Amino acid sequence: MIEQEHLDRLVKILGDKGVLTRAEDMEAYETGARYDHGRAAVVLRPATTAEVSAAVAYCVANGIALIPQSGNTGLVSGSTPDSSGNEAVLSLDRLTRQFELDLDNRSVRVDAGFRLSDLNRRLEEHDLFFPIDLGADPRLGGMIATNTGGSRFLKYGDVRRNTLGLKVVLADQTGTVLDLDCDLRKNNTGVDWKQIFIGTSGAFGIVTECMLNLERVPKQTSTAFLVPASGAHVLPLLKAMEERLGAYLSAFEGMSKNAIAAAFAHVPSLKNSFHGGNIPDYVILAEISRTWEPREGEQSLDAVLETVLAEIWETEEAPLADAFVGPPHETWALRHALSEGVKHLGKLIAFDLSFRRGDIMAFCDHMKAEMPEKFPGVTVCDFGHIGDGGVHFNLVVARDSSLLTDGSFEQRLREWVFAVAVEQYRGSFSAEHAIGRSNQALYDFYTPEKLKDMAAGLKTLTSPGKLGSVRFG
Amino acid sequence: MIEQEHLDRLVKILGDKGVLTRAEDMEAYETGARYDHGRAAVVLRPATTAEVSAAVAYCVANGIALIPQSGNTGLVSGSTPDSSGNEAVLSLDRLTRQFELDLDNRSVRVDAGFRLSDLNRRLEEHDLFFPIDLGADPRLGGMIATNTGGSRFLKYGDVRRNTLGLKVVLADQTGTVLDLDCDLRKNNTGVDWKQIFIGTSGAFGIVTECMLNLERVPKQTSTAFLVPASGAHVLPLLKAMEERLGAYLSAFEGMSKNAIAAAFAHVPSLKNSFHGGNIPDYVILAEISRTWEPREGEQSLDAVLETVLAEIWETEEAPLADAFVGPPHETWALRHALSEGVKHLGKLIAFDLSFRRGDIMAFCDHMKAEMPEKFPGVTVCDFGHIGDGGVHFNLVVARDSSLLTDGSFEQRLREWVFAVAVEQYRGSFSAEHAIGRSNQALYDFYTPEKLKDMAAGLKTLTSPGKLGSVRFG
Repeated sequence: MIEQEHLDRLVKILGDKGVLTRAEDMEAYETGARYDHGRAAVVLRPATTAEVSAAVAYCVANGIALIPQSGNTGLVSGSTPDSSGNEAVLSLDRLTRQFELDLDNRSVRVDAGFRLSDLNRRLEEHDLFFPIDLGADPRLGGMIATNTGGSRFLKYGDVRRNTLGLKVVLADQTGTVLDLDCDLRKNNTGVDWKQIFIGTSGAFGIVTECMLNLERVPKQTSTAFLVPASGAHVLPLLKAMEERLGAYLSAFEGMSKNAIAAAFAHVPSLKNSFHGGNIPDYVILAEISRTWEPREGEQSLDAVLETVLAEIWETEEAPLADAFVGPPHETWALRHALSEGVKHLGKLIAFDLSFRRGDIMAFCDHMKAEMPEKFPGVTVCDFGHIGDGGVHFNLVVARDSSLLTDGSFEQRLREWVFAVAVEQYRGSFSAEHAIGRSNQALYDFYTPEKLKDMAAGLKTLTSPGKLGSVRFG
Repeated sequence: MIEQEHLDRLVKILGDKGVLTRAEDMEAYETGARYDHGRAAVVLRPATTAEVSAAVAYCVANGIALIPQSGNTGLVSGSTPDSSGNEAVLSLDRLTRQFELDLDNRSVRVDAGFRLSDLNRRLEEHDLFFPIDLGADPRLGGMIATNTGGSRFLKYGDVRRNTLGLKVVLADQTGTVLDLDCDLRKNNTGVDWKQIFIGTSGAFGIVTECMLNLERVPKQTSTAFLVPASGAHVLPLLKAMEERLGAYLSAFEGMSKNAIAAAFAHVPSLKNSFHGGNIPDYVILAEISRTWEPREGEQSLDAVLETVLAEIWETEEAPLADAFVGPPHETWALRHALSEGVKHLGKLIAFDLSFRRGDIMAFCDHMKAEMPEKFPGVTVCDFGHIGDGGVHFNLVVARDSSLLTDGSFEQRLREWVFAVAVEQYRGSFSAEHAIGRSNQALYDFYTPEKLKDMAAGLKTLTSPGKLGSVRFG
């Protein structure tokens, strides 16, 4: 609930287009990409950093809680209001004016409301892109607030690595605009303050503008499905590829048999190129790429990949049981269908974990071995980014399973998975989705008190007002 | 000065080897790599994180100021005591016990007292290295405290990009050990606290242990000297190389005629391979490398480089006036001789600047054009890392110049350079040397008050005791 007087003042600050109050206009902003639905007091849509600042200052002065929202594609309830109806959503969706490309510097200065796809579309003609490869199409502010990683982290890193500078509005009495303006790559002149706004879900400030590193678009890409001799051979296979391909290697994605079967079942048009249609226990999608056009006298990239696979085939440790080079659009079509496929199998209980690379398969095998006894009826459909340690550890329960009538089942299952992943394997409970309301309890449980105290202090230093869905302190 | 009682207590904590008080033992710790000489009250040499913690707690409780010192190779007076004789140096040089390599994860967990060269020597047999390429041989703690960059930033990035986790001792009453232990690549579970200890000169805590990303050692390297058609053609040349070589390109270093001439004069054994011995106005050292052994059917790396240079030669914009591939040990010998060569020309006034890549040559040309009138007798001997925007902007004055008898000369010269670099070109006044006593005044002048206030708050949150040579708040 918000008083009419406040609404009138906010309309004065942001204009009519900048303030939504009708239920049908607000609904899209109240509903998360997958899980959550809340109720907003109002939706604010500033179009400039100055408007963000003015709106934030007004809300802080009047005790109105703000939930910054970017593309609203996150999966941890980080960008939607709670059910109280008291929180104002501050959307970045009109912050899409500024776009300044610096070709010499391979960088761009852009408003935080741009969608990733829109940014990359405008960069296309220059053969450049912002090299974060995701299933979703977020806006940039949210990518920074969650430090998204994705499928090509192995080659290009995460958002943190590719962010040169930021402009941030703090939730204080004046809506301070923090100018962390920088398009330099080497700059060590004090605290690198932008780092505290990256991956912290907007709790310390609202990113309104960003300066980003760009990379050259690959002009040649070659992919293959690799079948490791066993789970224990996945890492030797990765190391053999890294040794022989260096920076050519741009993806090394693992897919379990269950996840692949789910994708085939959900998308019948997918080509099943496995021998006799039999899906192996585990499959790697490996991608190599280079930024230049094919050159005379140079081996084709497919030939490079085939040569390397033949070499690995011959090695003593023989980590490879099978391998076949296939066109990228076909191999990636399968990889991209996994997530939707798994969702259609039944009730999905998803985990976004990461491990030291050597522990991924051990963890997954551990869980698959114990699951039938601990939680019979739960199917493991894991896939992930083996090259960087990330695992989408998905558990599925048939919709008619009696497990779902047991009120404590999901909670017990989650606790067990996190205990093994975090305590036993020293993994991360949020690899690339960051923190939101849905995993706040895990942050509270696993974060040392000293770090919570420091975060509370940082909050006071930056944005003492009510901002964001997460409490870090 | 330090009371005997304190010394006795510190010996109890650190043992005899852990406490130096004799002038001859302390001298090396009181003297910086190039510029500074101070006086220490005592030198503390803890051998474990627990000893660091105990010593720090004792010093904080008793108001003893601590200067953390790592390899002491920095150039901004960040790791030596002032002349008061009241500061205790806390050296990391005995923190060299732990070395845990994880080959699957391509990472290492290592004590912060390791020298870069010692770390890389131990990694050699595994074909791995910590990919920061520097002229000096620092210890790891100092590399983290200054976020060193170096000559291969273009390919591998800086220390920040390659740091996965840290252990840090805070200067508080208990010497809190902050466990930012992480060997994961994807982990977004709150504030990434390690970031505030990277590049901040030890002001917020003492790094005692680090978890680092490793890269594979190149097995093939090819280099060339490129002569750009003019200063304005340096960036088109870089872009043409990036377009055609992608991640092969591992260095793109610029060297001015004056710097090269100084190197030749100082090191007569250097081979002068320029036509007729005539040094061009500006020369680029370009390096390409790959991590695998030469493979049958694959073009040699020299052939790749020659093909690419021939292509660039033919382009319409023709950024290249001359180019010749030369063996890496010869080309790098010249590059590595620049710094010493320039120092021997006369009195050196050095600047560690960075710019947007497109502005480097414009800045240098601007300064060279105005110098004769503004500061006659000053020679510009610049060289730098064009690929990442870093410039070692070195000015030299003949030792017998009357300029050096003018007490205000150096100050006026510095002010002018910084004004043009930072205010006019929006560059950085400390690209890769970070902040120490010698550039504290620049930090104070160029840092917005709000960021200083936040830094003061951060200091209170982390290390309220007297720590480090820099005041960020």
